[in-house]
Amino acid sequence: METLSEQHCHGGVQGFYRHDSRVCGGPMRFALYLPPQSTRQPCPVLWFLAGLTCTEETATIKAGAQRLAAALGLALVMPDTSPRDTGLDGATGDWEFGEGAGFYLDATQKPWAARFNMRSYVAEELPALLSGKFPVDITRAGICGHSMGGHGALTLALAYPQRYRSVSAFAPIVAPSRVPWGQKAFSRYLGDDATAWSGYDACALVRQQTFPGTILIDQGEADRFLAEQLRPELFEQACAEAGQPLVLRRHPGYDHSYWFISSFIDDHLRHHAKALGL
Amino acid sequence: METLSEQHCHGGVQGFYRHDSRVCGGPMRFALYLPPQSTRQPCPVLWFLAGLTCTEETATIKAGAQRLAAALGLALVMPDTSPRDTGLDGATGDWEFGEGAGFYLDATQKPWAARFNMRSYVAEELPALLSGKFPVDITRAGICGHSMGGHGALTLALAYPQRYRSVSAFAPIVAPSRVPWGQKAFSRYLGDDATAWSGYDACALVRQQTFPGTILIDQGEADRFLAEQLRPELFEQACAEAGQPLVLRRHPGYDHSYWFISSFIDDHLRHHAKALGL
Repeated sequence: METLSEQHCHGGVQGFYRHDSRVCGGPMRFALYLPPQSTRQPCPVLWFLAGLTCTEETATIKAGAQRLAAALGLALVMPDTSPRDTGLDGATGDWEFGEGAGFYLDATQKPWAARFNMRSYVAEELPALLSGKFPVDITRAGICGHSMGGHGALTLALAYPQRYRSVSAFAPIVAPSRVPWGQKAFSRYLGDDATAWSGYDACALVRQQTFPGTILIDQGEADRFLAEQLRPELFEQACAEAGQPLVLRRHPGYDHSYWFISSFIDDHLRHHAKALGL
Repeated sequence: METLSEQHCHGGVQGFYRHDSRVCGGPMRFALYLPPQSTRQPCPVLWFLAGLTCTEETATIKAGAQRLAAALGLALVMPDTSPRDTGLDGATGDWEFGEGAGFYLDATQKPWAARFNMRSYVAEELPALLSGKFPVDITRAGICGHSMGGHGALTLALAYPQRYRSVSAFAPIVAPSRVPWGQKAFSRYLGDDATAWSGYDACALVRQQTFPGTILIDQGEADRFLAEQLRPELFEQACAEAGQPLVLRRHPGYDHSYWFISSFIDDHLRHHAKALGL
């Protein structure tokens, strides 16, 4: 593993790292914020999964999460959104698919299956790597994300409730099987048989198994992707039917940007801190 | 004046704007954060001047100042660091001089004098423009900056103490006449006669006239520019000799980046809020 940079921030250290990923078949980058408390004891972890076009730098720089994470004693892990420089035909040039658009799934279709395995990367490989190398307690984890990363957070928490004690999302894609972003990506990564998609669809997953805790979602009402791609009312309905506790907050005037995320990130950190016993 | 974007943020509005500047002879861009209180009454203003290579976006995105500004009721103005697309020979291609490196002075030498007049722009033209178009009380203002922008904040406050009720800086250039960055820029913008430089040198200015209030400076001890370009001990000595109250805080481990600024920006906002009666 290679340290790209480590810089003091709010009494802790903001680091960027690169390592060879087995499940993604090549180098991967991630950002890790270690709060000041980590010099004394391993700290619990909040995973933050970013959206389409983003990298490990986006939320790290724009969300403004380090201030309260430092006060709470919470480590922040912000992975890249896909493998990079894959050299695969069609992996670049379209912001909705391929590099920068990994959709936090394990691809089954050629040629993507060799590299695009972000579910296994985020749920298994990266936590194992972090455990051995940094003062983090990976068994105490929450997960959060934005847009495509909100989809990632919800589906990972619902698929692996034993790995995450809390989950939240900003403007998540909640029903990828039913919206253009998801249909385009899933048909290529997973094939045209939509029965294979349900394991990566938050609305389908919550009907199979609820998450043992309240899910927090913030959504801006001026978000230009709201009506076509996000459709939080579908998740609201699925949670109601499944008996899943959900707090869905709709914020007038807010859009899809990190100005929205930074406005409410502290509420999300507190949501996770409470579940993590901080 | 053209609105480039306006987005909800922490209950207020983060905007980016472009306008034709008379003193800079062309279009200029700036960022303005209006806190939620500005819908009820004009708000006092904190000017934040960025450093070499930066634009109006840098501190706006990276400093994390909006959260507390919203709580305090403080507007944030973040101008660009120079005119752009000047077409002048030598204005681009060198990160220490020209575009992105206006040094918050009024140039006297050809060809720079026609465009590079950032002191008049920040002290006079932009405040007048803001007063007429936004709910800000420009007569209640503090000024802060980073590196070259710290030089700008200190020299503007010391040259125009009636315009600013408070001043602070992160890792400022305090003695440009005596360090390579300043000598290179001043000799081109102002000519080789160094007597013309003293009006833009914080160490010289404070010896002529102190600022009516304590100056706050934060400096990282792991800042790679500390020993050659910043030299805060020179300003510390000048303030001591002049009787200028100064709080200079040295922070072990912190570097020159916005990770450093974001770690201490709240202390600066509170310093200004106190002087502004918030």
